[in-house]
Amino acid sequence: MPCKTLLAGTIAAPFRSELKEEIAKSGIAPLLVGFLANEDPAARKYAEWTAKTCEETGVRFELRECPRERLEEKVVEANEDPKVNGIMVYYPVFGDRQDQYLQNVVSTSKDVEGLTHKYVYNMYHNIRYLDEAESRKCIVPCTPLACIKVLEHLSVYNAVLPYGNRLHGRTIVIVNRSEVVGRPLAALLANDGARVLSVDVNDVKEFHRGPGISLSRHEVTETDYQLADVLPLADVIITGVPSPSFKIRTEALKDGVVAVNFSTAKNFNDDIKSRASLYVPSVGKVTVAMLQRNLLRLYAYQQEESSSKA
Amino acid sequence: MPCKTLLAGTIAAPFRSELKEEIAKSGIAPLLVGFLANEDPAARKYAEWTAKTCEETGVRFELRECPRERLEEKVVEANEDPKVNGIMVYYPVFGDRQDQYLQNVVSTSKDVEGLTHKYVYNMYHNIRYLDEAESRKCIVPCTPLACIKVLEHLSVYNAVLPYGNRLHGRTIVIVNRSEVVGRPLAALLANDGARVLSVDVNDVKEFHRGPGISLSRHEVTETDYQLADVLPLADVIITGVPSPSFKIRTEALKDGVVAVNFSTAKNFNDDIKSRASLYVPSVGKVTVAMLQRNLLRLYAYQQEESSSKA
Repeated sequence: MPCKTLLAGTIAAPFRSELKEEIAKSGIAPLLVGFLANEDPAARKYAEWTAKTCEETGVRFELRECPRERLEEKVVEANEDPKVNGIMVYYPVFGDRQDQYLQNVVSTSKDVEGLTHKYVYNMYHNIRYLDEAESRKCIVPCTPLACIKVLEHLSVYNAVLPYGNRLHGRTIVIVNRSEVVGRPLAALLANDGARVLSVDVNDVKEFHRGPGISLSRHEVTETDYQLADVLPLADVIITGVPSPSFKIRTEALKDGVVAVNFSTAKNFNDDIKSRASLYVPSVGKVTVAMLQRNLLRLYAYQQEESSSKA
Repeated sequence: MPCKTLLAGTIAAPFRSELKEEIAKSGIAPLLVGFLANEDPAARKYAEWTAKTCEETGVRFELRECPRERLEEKVVEANEDPKVNGIMVYYPVFGDRQDQYLQNVVSTSKDVEGLTHKYVYNMYHNIRYLDEAESRKCIVPCTPLACIKVLEHLSVYNAVLPYGNRLHGRTIVIVNRSEVVGRPLAALLANDGARVLSVDVNDVKEFHRGPGISLSRHEVTETDYQLADVLPLADVIITGVPSPSFKIRTEALKDGVVAVNFSTAKNFNDDIKSRASLYVPSVGKVTVAMLQRNLLRLYAYQQEESSSKA
C-alpha cells in the first residue's frame, strides 16, 4: 500500500503545543463558554470532549445548559460579561432560520466559530483582515479552517506560490455543501486559487476564480456534472456526508488522490489506501485546536480593544 | 498574471553555495576534464561557460581538444590519470552508435554525466545506490537531475510522501524522448511515482508504476494518444524541443499547470504566464551545478576507494 494515513491528532499536535506554550508564557486563562440548548447526545459528548481538550492546553471551558427559549438572553449576558472571552452554541437549536438569527446574536468580538455576519461576509468576499493595516485576521469557522490546516500539512497548499494563490492548479471535490462546513470550505479553497467542485444531493456547483485565477474572489457556476463525473477529476477529495451507508467508490478516483473525511461517518471504503497517496480519516482534533486558536486570537483583540480605550 | 517565473540561477544558487562551501572547507581542488572533439560552436560556448562557472565554485576545469579519431585514447589516458577526478565528453562526436560506445569508455568512477552502462542500468531499474549499505548514491545524468531538482524546488515533489513515491498523483507530460534527457527523465519521474506521458514525433508512451504505484520500478506502455490529447492532462509539462518554431499551445494546457523548458529554444509562448502557476524558462544553470555535484560525489568515492586500498 503506497498510501500514507495521517491522523488528526498528529496534524493537531503542533497547534496544540503552540497554544499551550502561548497560554503558559503569557499567564492568561481565557474563558470559552459553550451553550447547549438541545437534547442531542452527540452535542453533549462533543462538549465534554472539548472541555477535556481545552483543559489540557490551559483554556477554561464552561458548558452552560438552558432551554432553547432562554438561549438568546443567556448569550446576551455572556456578550456583556467581560470575564467571557469566547462564545459558542451547539447547533441545531431550532433547526431553522432562527438558528441563523442566533448566530448573529453572538458578539463579533467573542464569536469563536466565525458565524456572525461580518466574518461570513468577509470569508465569502475573500477579505482576510478586519482592519486596513492588516494586523487583525478574520475569524474563520473551525471545521473549514481545520480542513485548510490539514491541506497545508499535506502540502496540497504549495508554499512556493504566493500567499492567497497556493491552490492554483488543484482540482478539489467537496461532497457536502452545508452552510456550516461544505459551502464556506468551497469558498475558502476557491479563494485560495483551487477549482472546487462542490457536490450535494441536488447538483454539482463549481467555485473558482476564473481562468488564470483572474478574479480577486471566487464565483460560483452551475454545472451539468453529477458526482460520478467529478470523482475522476479530483486531485483532492473532501467528504462530509453524515451517513454510515454513504461511501465514495474508490475505483472512480484518480490514482494518487488525496482523500480527507470530515464526517463522523466513514465516507471512504477501506480500499481507499490502495488508491490514495494521502488519507486523513477524520479532522475533529484539528477542529478543536482551531476553536482554541480562534479564542486566543479574539482574546488578543479584546485586550488591544480595552487597552486602547483605557 | 498569477504566474510565478523562477529562473534557473535562483534555483541553482543554494546548490552553488553548498558546493563552494564544501570545496573551501575541505581544501580540495577536484579536476574535471571536458573533451571537445567536434566542431560544434555551441559545445565550445557551453564548455567555456562551464569553465567559468566551475572556477567560481573552486572546481578546476580543463578543456582538452582533439580530433575525434583520437578521442578514445585520450579518454583512456584520463581514466588512468589519478589527477583527473571527472571526465565528460561533448556529444555528438560521431553521432551514431559509436558515441554510445565512447560513453562506456569513460571509467565509471569518473563518469560525471552518468552515461556509463552501470549508471544507466541502475537508473532504469530504480536502483538508487551502488552498494548494499546504501552509502553511495548512483550518478544521475545532469540535465534530468537538474529537472528533478527544479521540480523539488517547485514543491511538485511532495515531501510529505515517503522518499521514492513523492510524485504519486502527478501527471507529467515530457515533450522530448532523447536518450540523453527525455527518456531517462521520464524513467526517473515515473520511478518516483508519477504518471509520465512521454511525447516524441512518433508517438506518446506512458511511463508508470501501475495502479497504486504497485511496481517497484516503472514500466512503459504504448498509447494511442497524440500531443494534443495529453496537454490538457498535464499537472506539469516539461519541454525540450531544440527548434525555435516549436511552441506548446498555451490554451491546450490546464489552468495552474507547472511549465518547465530545458531546451535552449523557447518552447512556450509568452502567454504561458496567463495559464501556468509556475514557469521555469530554462534549466542550464542547474545542470552545471549538478555536473559539479556529481564530480564532488565521485571525488569522495575515489578518496574512499584509495584509502581502503591503502
